[in-house]
Amino acid sequence: MFDQKNIQQAIDTLKQQFGERLSTSSSVRQQHGHTTTRISNQPPDAVIFAKTTDEVSAILRVCNQTSCPAIAFGTGSSLEGHVNAPFGGVSIDMSSFDKVLTVNHEDLDATVQPGVTREDLNTYLRDTGLFFPIDPGANASIGGMAATRASGTNAVRYGTMKDNVLGMEIVLADGRTIRTGGRSRKSAAGYDLTRLMVGSEGTLGIITELTLRLHSIPDKIAGGICSFPTIRAACNAVIETIQLGIPIARLEMLDPLHVRACNAYSQLNLPEKPLLLVEFHGTSDSVEDDAARFSDICDDHSPSPFHWSDNPDERKKLWKARHDALWAAYALIPGATGFATDVCVPISKLADCIEDTITDIEAAGLTAPIVGHVGDGNFHVLPLAMPDDIDMHHKISEFSGRLTARSLKLGGTCTGEHGIGQGKSIYLRDEMGEAVEIMNDIKTAFDPKNILNPGKIF
Amino acid sequence: MFDQKNIQQAIDTLKQQFGERLSTSSSVRQQHGHTTTRISNQPPDAVIFAKTTDEVSAILRVCNQTSCPAIAFGTGSSLEGHVNAPFGGVSIDMSSFDKVLTVNHEDLDATVQPGVTREDLNTYLRDTGLFFPIDPGANASIGGMAATRASGTNAVRYGTMKDNVLGMEIVLADGRTIRTGGRSRKSAAGYDLTRLMVGSEGTLGIITELTLRLHSIPDKIAGGICSFPTIRAACNAVIETIQLGIPIARLEMLDPLHVRACNAYSQLNLPEKPLLLVEFHGTSDSVEDDAARFSDICDDHSPSPFHWSDNPDERKKLWKARHDALWAAYALIPGATGFATDVCVPISKLADCIEDTITDIEAAGLTAPIVGHVGDGNFHVLPLAMPDDIDMHHKISEFSGRLTARSLKLGGTCTGEHGIGQGKSIYLRDEMGEAVEIMNDIKTAFDPKNILNPGKIF
Repeated sequence: MFDQKNIQQAIDTLKQQFGERLSTSSSVRQQHGHTTTRISNQPPDAVIFAKTTDEVSAILRVCNQTSCPAIAFGTGSSLEGHVNAPFGGVSIDMSSFDKVLTVNHEDLDATVQPGVTREDLNTYLRDTGLFFPIDPGANASIGGMAATRASGTNAVRYGTMKDNVLGMEIVLADGRTIRTGGRSRKSAAGYDLTRLMVGSEGTLGIITELTLRLHSIPDKIAGGICSFPTIRAACNAVIETIQLGIPIARLEMLDPLHVRACNAYSQLNLPEKPLLLVEFHGTSDSVEDDAARFSDICDDHSPSPFHWSDNPDERKKLWKARHDALWAAYALIPGATGFATDVCVPISKLADCIEDTITDIEAAGLTAPIVGHVGDGNFHVLPLAMPDDIDMHHKISEFSGRLTARSLKLGGTCTGEHGIGQGKSIYLRDEMGEAVEIMNDIKTAFDPKNILNPGKIF
Repeated sequence: MFDQKNIQQAIDTLKQQFGERLSTSSSVRQQHGHTTTRISNQPPDAVIFAKTTDEVSAILRVCNQTSCPAIAFGTGSSLEGHVNAPFGGVSIDMSSFDKVLTVNHEDLDATVQPGVTREDLNTYLRDTGLFFPIDPGANASIGGMAATRASGTNAVRYGTMKDNVLGMEIVLADGRTIRTGGRSRKSAAGYDLTRLMVGSEGTLGIITELTLRLHSIPDKIAGGICSFPTIRAACNAVIETIQLGIPIARLEMLDPLHVRACNAYSQLNLPEKPLLLVEFHGTSDSVEDDAARFSDICDDHSPSPFHWSDNPDERKKLWKARHDALWAAYALIPGATGFATDVCVPISKLADCIEDTITDIEAAGLTAPIVGHVGDGNFHVLPLAMPDDIDMHHKISEFSGRLTARSLKLGGTCTGEHGIGQGKSIYLRDEMGEAVEIMNDIKTAFDPKNILNPGKIF
């Protein structure tokens, strides 16, 4: 598919322009093919530390002429092998694109370079009264978050990356640079290239600038937790909360195994039952009102009390299980690798999907805690296995297939927020059917030589 | 570009299948090329009243084989000549696709056929406690609203069609049928075909089914109005409202001319000054709180009082000017045609844009009231002219060009919600630059023979 001679020719040409900023050192290459899950490392042939849009454009022109794969690299925190280089080629490291270019307080927007991380952006915004709400957990780069259509705990209130990117500057496969949209809050001018690029995983172009929606930091944040006797009871509380339109900012669930892991890891004494964690953003009055309404719902579905607080320290203490959840999960089997996966189903099917998944986990003899952004019907399973336990890896792969099939059967998707990458490409056709053909046609229209992140999505 | 012989061949073939449901009567054809503004009528050669997805698929297969233009028709309420047939061909009337297929209360979604109108859908939903919020004014079809990326007064709170369509069934140019997405609230599975199709104005495929997000009807709706001394003062109040995150459901502005028109038409006594109209959705407590906060903002920017009510009759009385605004505008020059146009700018530029536009209107000697969905920075101008006043039509065209240039210069878009259609295609390149090329490439990938609504967008 790609010829090593061509790739070498591209690297030789680019070396002349980039000198020391093009690295072929083994450790740098491996780090740029690094995957955070059990997907194997497939390093690129070279890594280029680009600094400007013109440089990205120059790189892609060379790569396009020589048919050399080009893979944009943010922080490497993606979960489905997005930055791997299965066909070799060059990784374009975007970490020098680390500037917040403008913040418009009156318009609640900011224009940033793609290498700015989520935490850096919010640190920068600290004194403005504004924040960028999308929080996928990892301190990912904004460019990477757009490329994978990231979301996370806040999405139930603030939406996903698709809802919070107003426009982007994109370098196309042949080196041309376009803008997909301006700063107006809405537009009906032509095809929605912004939304097409969000979630395209570096396969249609490379993001070199983004204009983002910001939000006002709420006057008051309140948080609370409630244990439920069953997954179904917790899910019914979720459904009622959404139906009543209570403006929750986060609505998370831990399954009993995950609660047990958190108790052990964070020295907590939570009942080892499904746990809902909720957060409200608003004024003092409104969060109190929201908490009261949510408390009534909990009363109808659980004998356990709803504990909540709008005191920051108290709130953090209540949410400690959630904040430590990932490390607590890993601590269930010290030294284990986690096979992070996510699906998303209509909320009415969430109880069915999670209950059947727990039954499946137990029958397969897996250790696999579940945490869900249940306000969206999205949940993660983290099956654990020692790196050398090939038999368990095999069991986990089979489980993942069953989990996806279950989600699709219930009207859901094979990935709510991680993206397809390498790990989920086998499921894309099951989910999207013949629509995959038209995705392929779009890919060919944008990138006829298939140089942009080949081997991903399709 | 298209050969009349081929078109006739397509019609002959389709006549055999559709019989009486294919009409070539002059009045039916003219009605299906009907435009609501001063864009001239360009009727199709035939109109087919399709009933099923398979029929739409069969029509497109014939049209694609014979290179015959095919134009989907909803209710004909679009404003930029979207349903015109500049190259002839067949109009596919979708009004028989009028079923609400499913409503899922727990998931707050519904699957509907594209010919269902906005009002029909909300009538159907009446007893469910749910509603579909997008309200572009006209009683448009849901399919047409998706095709033009419609929004309207509620968008500041509920988003536009892009935010409220979860997935669609689409018939592609060659007759293949795809689904763009399922019922889950979010997905990261491949390219966002749903958002690509929303706003594609019938040029990439024909929508035969839509799954929509619904919202809970709020417990309480409150509405209010406040007059402001200047456009700038009103815009500053808007900016502060958005910055404070007050969850307004609607935030509209009428300019002084429009207020005068409403006073005359609806026998009101409003000060002939910029008027903000606001609506809050929530609980009794929350709307009261919202109104109090908004009232404080009005106090800072206007000597006039903020009148509000959560009594439905009182609220409607306060909003009467807005409800009658379109007819009031037309009554300024009885018998006149309106050249409805819309632009959208970053909110910080709204005062500049509207003030300069009013100066322009006065200098050009136009009668052109302004109404804005100002919470989004979107506003409409309705220049009026008698149908035979060619000189005035010419002046209005020039004004429209200046308005668009002004909006683009301020970082805005040439259309916030009407779409490009025929009327705005001359501005698309000014706004999107080289991105138009890649839109063209997408169009070619979807529809290599350019049979789907040719002459629109590009």
